[in-house]
Amino acid sequence: MKTLYAADGSDLHPHFGPYFSDGKRRVDYVLAYQIQKPNTVRKPSPKFGENNFIRRLRRSISMRSSRAPLQPKEDPEITAQEHQTDYHEDDKRFRRDEYEENLLETGLELEKDEGSKIPGIGFLKIHAPWHVLCREAEFMKLKMPTKKVRLFIHKVTAPLHPKVDVSHPHSVKSLSHPFSREKQHLFDLSDKNKFFDSTTRSSIVYEVLKRTRCTKAKYSMGITSLLANGVYVSGYPLHDVILYSYIPFVVLQLLYEEWASYSVFYKYQPIGLIRKYFGEKVGLYFAWLGVYTQMLIPAAIVGVIVFLYGCATVDENIPSMEICDPRNNVTMCPLCDQACSYWKLVTACGTARASHLFDNPATVFFSIFMALWAVLFMEHWKRRQMRLNYIWDLTGFGEEEEVSDHNRADYEFRVMQKSMRLENSPPKVTPTTHNLFGISVTFAIVFGVILYRISIKAALHMSSYPAARSNIRATVKTTAAIINLIIIIIMDEIYAAIARWLTTLEVPKTDKSFEQRLIFKTFILKFVNAFTPIVYLAFFRGRLVGRPGKYLYVVGSYRMEECAHSGCLMELCIQLCITMLGKQLIQNNLFEIGIPKIKKLLRQRKSEMDTKQEEELNKTLRRHEKDHFLGPFIGLNPEYMEMIIQFGMVTLFVASFPLAPLFALLNNIIEIRLDAKKFVTELRRPIAAKAKDIGIWYNLLRGLSKVAVIVNAFVISFTSDFIPRLVYQYTYSPDGTLHGFTNHTLAFFNVSDFQPGTDPLEPMHLGYKVDMCRYKDYREPPWSTTPYDFSKEFWAILAARLAFVIVFQNVVMLMSDFVDWLIPDIPKDISLQMHKEKILMVELFMKEEQGKRLTMRERNTPQQPRSRPNSHTNCV
Amino acid sequence: MKTLYAADGSDLHPHFGPYFSDGKRRVDYVLAYQIQKPNTVRKPSPKFGENNFIRRLRRSISMRSSRAPLQPKEDPEITAQEHQTDYHEDDKRFRRDEYEENLLETGLELEKDEGSKIPGIGFLKIHAPWHVLCREAEFMKLKMPTKKVRLFIHKVTAPLHPKVDVSHPHSVKSLSHPFSREKQHLFDLSDKNKFFDSTTRSSIVYEVLKRTRCTKAKYSMGITSLLANGVYVSGYPLHDVILYSYIPFVVLQLLYEEWASYSVFYKYQPIGLIRKYFGEKVGLYFAWLGVYTQMLIPAAIVGVIVFLYGCATVDENIPSMEICDPRNNVTMCPLCDQACSYWKLVTACGTARASHLFDNPATVFFSIFMALWAVLFMEHWKRRQMRLNYIWDLTGFGEEEEVSDHNRADYEFRVMQKSMRLENSPPKVTPTTHNLFGISVTFAIVFGVILYRISIKAALHMSSYPAARSNIRATVKTTAAIINLIIIIIMDEIYAAIARWLTTLEVPKTDKSFEQRLIFKTFILKFVNAFTPIVYLAFFRGRLVGRPGKYLYVVGSYRMEECAHSGCLMELCIQLCITMLGKQLIQNNLFEIGIPKIKKLLRQRKSEMDTKQEEELNKTLRRHEKDHFLGPFIGLNPEYMEMIIQFGMVTLFVASFPLAPLFALLNNIIEIRLDAKKFVTELRRPIAAKAKDIGIWYNLLRGLSKVAVIVNAFVISFTSDFIPRLVYQYTYSPDGTLHGFTNHTLAFFNVSDFQPGTDPLEPMHLGYKVDMCRYKDYREPPWSTTPYDFSKEFWAILAARLAFVIVFQNVVMLMSDFVDWLIPDIPKDISLQMHKEKILMVELFMKEEQGKRLTMRERNTPQQPRSRPNSHTNCV
Repeated sequence: MKTLYAADGSDLHPHFGPYFSDGKRRVDYVLAYQIQKPNTVRKPSPKFGENNFIRRLRRSISMRSSRAPLQPKEDPEITAQEHQTDYHEDDKRFRRDEYEENLLETGLELEKDEGSKIPGIGFLKIHAPWHVLCREAEFMKLKMPTKKVRLFIHKVTAPLHPKVDVSHPHSVKSLSHPFSREKQHLFDLSDKNKFFDSTTRSSIVYEVLKRTRCTKAKYSMGITSLLANGVYVSGYPLHDVILYSYIPFVVLQLLYEEWASYSVFYKYQPIGLIRKYFGEKVGLYFAWLGVYTQMLIPAAIVGVIVFLYGCATVDENIPSMEICDPRNNVTMCPLCDQACSYWKLVTACGTARASHLFDNPATVFFSIFMALWAVLFMEHWKRRQMRLNYIWDLTGFGEEEEVSDHNRADYEFRVMQKSMRLENSPPKVTPTTHNLFGISVTFAIVFGVILYRISIKAALHMSSYPAARSNIRATVKTTAAIINLIIIIIMDEIYAAIARWLTTLEVPKTDKSFEQRLIFKTFILKFVNAFTPIVYLAFFRGRLVGRPGKYLYVVGSYRMEECAHSGCLMELCIQLCITMLGKQLIQNNLFEIGIPKIKKLLRQRKSEMDTKQEEELNKTLRRHEKDHFLGPFIGLNPEYMEMIIQFGMVTLFVASFPLAPLFALLNNIIEIRLDAKKFVTELRRPIAAKAKDIGIWYNLLRGLSKVAVIVNAFVISFTSDFIPRLVYQYTYSPDGTLHGFTNHTLAFFNVSDFQPGTDPLEPMHLGYKVDMCRYKDYREPPWSTTPYDFSKEFWAILAARLAFVIVFQNVVMLMSDFVDWLIPDIPKDISLQMHKEKILMVELFMKEEQGKRLTMRERNTPQQPRSRPNSHTNCV
Repeated sequence: MKTLYAADGSDLHPHFGPYFSDGKRRVDYVLAYQIQKPNTVRKPSPKFGENNFIRRLRRSISMRSSRAPLQPKEDPEITAQEHQTDYHEDDKRFRRDEYEENLLETGLELEKDEGSKIPGIGFLKIHAPWHVLCREAEFMKLKMPTKKVRLFIHKVTAPLHPKVDVSHPHSVKSLSHPFSREKQHLFDLSDKNKFFDSTTRSSIVYEVLKRTRCTKAKYSMGITSLLANGVYVSGYPLHDVILYSYIPFVVLQLLYEEWASYSVFYKYQPIGLIRKYFGEKVGLYFAWLGVYTQMLIPAAIVGVIVFLYGCATVDENIPSMEICDPRNNVTMCPLCDQACSYWKLVTACGTARASHLFDNPATVFFSIFMALWAVLFMEHWKRRQMRLNYIWDLTGFGEEEEVSDHNRADYEFRVMQKSMRLENSPPKVTPTTHNLFGISVTFAIVFGVILYRISIKAALHMSSYPAARSNIRATVKTTAAIINLIIIIIMDEIYAAIARWLTTLEVPKTDKSFEQRLIFKTFILKFVNAFTPIVYLAFFRGRLVGRPGKYLYVVGSYRMEECAHSGCLMELCIQLCITMLGKQLIQNNLFEIGIPKIKKLLRQRKSEMDTKQEEELNKTLRRHEKDHFLGPFIGLNPEYMEMIIQFGMVTLFVASFPLAPLFALLNNIIEIRLDAKKFVTELRRPIAAKAKDIGIWYNLLRGLSKVAVIVNAFVISFTSDFIPRLVYQYTYSPDGTLHGFTNHTLAFFNVSDFQPGTDPLEPMHLGYKVDMCRYKDYREPPWSTTPYDFSKEFWAILAARLAFVIVFQNVVMLMSDFVDWLIPDIPKDISLQMHKEKILMVELFMKEEQGKRLTMRERNTPQQPRSRPNSHTNCV
């Protein structure tokens, strides 16, 4: 082998890529497979194109004798290990041979490497020669840059932009045109090695791989089936080589330095480069994450201001002043049966003051602001997406994407199975049934979790010492929130598995539909999981407690939980805060950094080598061998999912926790670089997938921001005291201020009306005999004609709350639609630019046309001097 | 002239189209212009291509001496008449000459016809030769059918389908591919005269016309500017010739017989043919109208059932039974000050019974049904549109549409003006300012109309004889509704003019943006106009009347209008019924049939001929001369607008008028054929415009169906008595039935509490002295501690009403979104078909590729026998 090795063991070459053993042909894709037995004598890799006939003959004979059913599995690596018997191995080898032959027929060039340093693994290196690249590029209608270059004006925010524009400054954009061999003159083909970059080459090869099929076996298998059945262990394009010294034009190098580093956290991401290296789909994810993070900055600032406003006005808040005033000697009814006794309202002073931080008029403003913020974010993203589509020449790319999807391996296998046993086929389970089944399972699980939570709470309640409870309320709240968090995180993983299982049951036809269903199910389950305790706190806790003398009892004799005097908002806030912080810290640190590292270690351990040997080997490993040890790229869905749940936290209950955007912002600044590091150093290079938009995620975002409006309307009107205060101030207050509000919210209860056996055991706890105690509700006093019925105030305030919900929901929705309508989806400069480009294309076309006519006239002149260019036959 | 004339005077030709005087070259487009003076000696039409140099020279000399400013006008025909001075005529002729020369340079062929039978009008006939057609088709990426034909399975509803599939049965679809001269072998070019049909030919010519510009004058003018400035009077492609005898393949003939006829009203429309003849945009309109009408059938049926349910249960309705029972001797408070006296509730029996027809539980079901119906309609349409897009090969056509828009003539003129007086340019009026101005003007107008209506009502009220009023209440209601209708129709026309004026003020840049702004403005104004009286009746009338003893007075001493005892629903219903019927009858009959006829007559009268001469001439007129007398095609916006307003009527207040869908259905069955007749016989043939969807109208429909949910929620909960009845039945009723409901809704009033001067003049009208009268409201009785305050029931019922609105709105919206999500946008068979087509294209491409390789190998073989097909240089 003539390949040179760099200092770190990578194969060094003037073009910085791994090559075939001739050092010329670039490796565009690698398929790895298990070698029959590591110890058997290695056959020299057969030279393709020679002796084809004999090999074909041999195989066709052996095929007839080996028709065993294949068991497809989900994880190729497990499958590969389970099926290590010679018998299956033979079958796999035959399939490989057939597949490779079919690949050769498409014009790809192959090289086998079974003598690698990793025992038991053979590599098939694939190279696409120029004519295949041309043919496929034309067929895929790839838009390639033409010679014509246009100036493209870009905003100048120099210090914030990453330093990656060495070769192509942002302000220049090539006019591009779908590649066509007939129009070669349009393109700059001076360096054929550079015309298609490594990303394009690998996606072209992958396109060919997808189209090529094994047909001689029982059922036709594409590359996905071959991978799923362990015929090949894995397939991936190769990473560029990082040389740890500055060499321009190596994209990965630039990405490593200017993107996957915490030191550049304040800069924009080099989206163009990310797209160039990882493809449009990954590029869009990071662009989206960038826009989201950027948009969080104003939200975080306003959130902090709102919080500070709450802090500043806490001493001017009349209701909490009234509660804290010891002169208002209010005796409250006991909070539990028998064990609890009467208590003084003044002891709730701390909670009342803390509640004001999150329950003040500014939060109403803030939740309107955040609803509009969500719309602005979506609009901003749409425009950014449009701009990227333009810059990345995706404007023509469209619907074809939807139909060019290949069948899933599992589906193919099922179809095969079905065709094999047509006589005793089981009753067909339609997708609808499955869907319904899935939904019902979801709700059963969710309900189970709620019951589990309630019983845990009840147990906690009973075990703690009753008298001390009111003092340690805050502690209990916090621990409850932490327990909730742990349950959430554990259930998150379980739900992800359930969603996958349910989707697998449905056997969707294509990978795309599989992905969509999986995303949808996972989203529903994870979302319900994350928000159940919060929704419970916001809307159900303390609603159905009944009243003194007639409490509502559940599960035997447990009274429903009550809220603190100032509502459940405080607890809601603690829960939100802990869920957000905890989820992000644990998921980021543990799952995103820790687990991949452990997995990588395990994968290296598997290959049965001790550590020293391994390390030494690691240095001399070549690119495709190194990449083999990296984690497989499993798609962007987990990343998106995490962000969408976070978006839900930021928008859904923002009325109760204005600091949420700040927490999200801090998390995302880290998240971007963390994800970047993962993509650059931990994962195999993904196939560059084209995408015009972020797909289903946009719809989920849109759905969330709609739900957020309603949820915020309910939080403001039902969870907070905003509406009762407003109604009191403008209707009942004698002087137009909130003085007397606390008294107005408390109903009277005659202690003689306690149900037998529920009155306090220590009635003299406060030191005096209590005749009348107070409780927070709008009910008639004991001396009215209808004692303890809801009072007229109750109904009036309820009507006000409901009216607020209607007004808030519709006004905010109208404003959102208005903003949506006001901001054009296509930025003006882009639409101008597109218009100009269109005109340029017309000019180009016309010039070409004239050129043709001229050459034609010249050609025609010697034969027919009188022929006119616009005669009937000149159309060629 | 060698052209033959058919029996009716049309030029007969084996290909049934009008041709150049050589009888061979087809006329693809006609531009008409004013001839300098009808009486001057007619110059023989110059032969183009000859003496170009001399004419160019002559013009360039004369151009220098005639640089007068041009005044662009909106209506080209008026302009043409106003500028008949020689001076301007010269200028126009020079422009024409330059333009025509530029046209010749693009390869189009022209023929002038100034000796036509219409004095003062010259015609420029334009023909596109084959090579121009090819070039432009390739440039416009027109998808043309290839030789390959695929079976396309179509639903079998044979008797309902029009008999138009003589040549091409529906079940066959050609595989089509963007036309390219390099891939001519793909297409069936055996008959070059038929490959591009007349529709395609004319749109190709129009494309060239749009691109060609006059540049030698002060400012560059496109065809739109030339038309707007009267340089040309009009431009249109020619209609096919109807021969009134069955000859297949003449599309217009088929359309005339199988579409534009009332006798085929039960059949589907021949959408494919409509599209073939009028282009995609018109095709989509009629397809949409068809889908809408079809969807109205189930809605009308359910509506009739709901209405019949109301009729059937009118005798079992307890509240109206109670009102009609003379034993319930209820004395009601007077309905107006002084003049009116006390009255018996039993006299409201008729209205109560009638109200039940429209106010029963079935209407609640019906409005939920209609909300879902609207969503289903939208979904159905989306699928239909997708199907049409597939059948019409529009799937690739997309965003380019948006940017390929040409500047408006008026905009160009303004820009020119601005560049001419850069020094003293007026302060720039931004579109935002204009928009705000427009909106404020809108509201001012609307408010003015409301005031006008109220004062008219008040006047009517005062003039009618007071004592007889309660008896002739129904008559007054009906006449008021008719007056409203007349106002609506008059204001409709005025508003249309205002919208146009406002949009013209804004000077939008492109025709597309002009159209969009105009549509939006017109929609807002017309919508507000049509729905103001209805909204007033539904939500404001009778709300703010105050109570006996404390009525609310406006404009001096007029009491606000009250509703009848059973709510305003009855009046709302009458108003809706009259508006729908009246608007449709008047607008259909008068505006759509009458006015175009009158216009046509006037246009013929203009050309200064007496009737006999005219008739005789009419017989001998040729196609382009006949078409000159037809009405210009002014776009589909008025048609869409009418239908959208109707859609609003059908969905918005459906809770109060379940027969609306039936009325709409009957109207639309006529409307389709009426529009068809208009398009086929009354209007000039439109340029075939491409469109993938119905554009802004879809958004308006979507918006309307959203608003409908909210409006219906409010109608049910506030206008009807549904919620009070429900609350009474389940909360206050002693026996769980509605018995006693009427009594429960009536509050007591002590007659001694009348304000001085407002008590009835004839207190003994009923024959006994009244101490206590009743009125419809939930208020405390005079003997309570807070007399006449709103009672607890009022607040409880208000809360229930508001809760219903929230629940209804969100449940229906959720259901709509669910339905939206459940139904895939692309019908399954279409997506399968597209997938198959894609695979077929791959096959075709691969086969071609192999063919190429084979020929190449063959070519290469004699020279280099060893050369391999996949060597590096084979990419051609």
